[in-house]
Amino acid sequence: MDRAPFACGRSLGGCHDASFSPILRAVDARVAVLASGSGTNLQALLDDPAVGPAVALVVSDRSEAKALDRARTAGVSAVHLDPAAHPSREAHDRELLGLLRAASIDVVCLAGYMRILSPEVVRAYWGRMVNVHPSLLPAFPGAHAVREALAWGARVTGCTVHLVDQEVDHGPILAQEAVAILADDDEETLHARIREVEHRLYPATVRALLEGRVRMEGRRAVVEDRPA
Amino acid sequence: MDRAPFACGRSLGGCHDASFSPILRAVDARVAVLASGSGTNLQALLDDPAVGPAVALVVSDRSEAKALDRARTAGVSAVHLDPAAHPSREAHDRELLGLLRAASIDVVCLAGYMRILSPEVVRAYWGRMVNVHPSLLPAFPGAHAVREALAWGARVTGCTVHLVDQEVDHGPILAQEAVAILADDDEETLHARIREVEHRLYPATVRALLEGRVRMEGRRAVVEDRPA
Repeated sequence: MDRAPFACGRSLGGCHDASFSPILRAVDARVAVLASGSGTNLQALLDDPAVGPAVALVVSDRSEAKALDRARTAGVSAVHLDPAAHPSREAHDRELLGLLRAASIDVVCLAGYMRILSPEVVRAYWGRMVNVHPSLLPAFPGAHAVREALAWGARVTGCTVHLVDQEVDHGPILAQEAVAILADDDEETLHARIREVEHRLYPATVRALLEGRVRMEGRRAVVEDRPA
Repeated sequence: MDRAPFACGRSLGGCHDASFSPILRAVDARVAVLASGSGTNLQALLDDPAVGPAVALVVSDRSEAKALDRARTAGVSAVHLDPAAHPSREAHDRELLGLLRAASIDVVCLAGYMRILSPEVVRAYWGRMVNVHPSLLPAFPGAHAVREALAWGARVTGCTVHLVDQEVDHGPILAQEAVAILADDDEETLHARIREVEHRLYPATVRALLEGRVRMEGRRAVVEDRPA
């Protein structure tokens, strides 16, 4: 768990070269985004001046995902990988891994991706795969985080950006921000305010990863304000 | 779980009489505080102009608890109830319940009380017993909430005031406030900032309970800004 992100980064060799500016580093890296839905977090990544140019591939498990349209509009390779067309999760994930490797992907961003990835994919991108989740983990993991925070009667929730490990919504935290739950909130109004924070926090955190500003201290991920 | 706090309140009959001002209501009620340690949350309750006059009894399981000194200084009855002097937790808690009833206590505030109460005590004061906990529950329950939030690598924690039910650090939430975890925080610095919030949030929430501004909607406790 204490292997540093990018410790073995292949095409991110520039990370440790002080002559590279952070922006150049970010553009050097190649990012894939996995999305199942409307892709608003994908759009936030595409719109970020440092991260957007690094996005080289978008993969969705759903052919009708709006995320694929957003990718095509941005001129990014968009692939529908149909789970039903594979005999097993492992077979599907092997093809996914093949796609990522063929596109020389350094960093994988999950953005509303509703499938659980097999250990092989998680291991291959350990320290280089991130997820954004609409709660302050470890509170309210899983697919219904906003609804469950409301049902629990919590007064504060938020969003979390974390490295992906073998357990769902569990890996080392890179960033969190609190969002107050208002007395008249329903799932829709609360989720909308959390998404606003996600769309700011997720690109900023992915940028830190691309710029080599993330290091591990045990389970704790440290994000530096500037490159070491 | 949806029985309203104070629905059967005995000596809080004035709660539903519109001619009583909130302050008079608060002074009408009788509050006990259970504490094991230095009693800084007890002091915050004593110092609150609405809650302080209502505190009628302080009980500690430790004879050397500074909380007992604070009670005596404030002119409040201070009782050391020695767990070692009782053959069982049930016997100890029956004496505790006897003390609370003899003092006509309406509301019980746990303030750093390190003993788990038996179901009989919890049932007797359901909806009228509150606790303050140094995390955003349901994250980091238990006795080491601050240390565990740091070890987990969380970026946001906070404090929670909740009704006490049969599970530890689990009952309906009355109030929460977030506290950011800073990069150079240790357990002491982080706990100090959480305590600052506790010392403001706990008296304000106890006051809402005394003033009849808490009602249940399923598991969710609603705290009104003003009495219904």
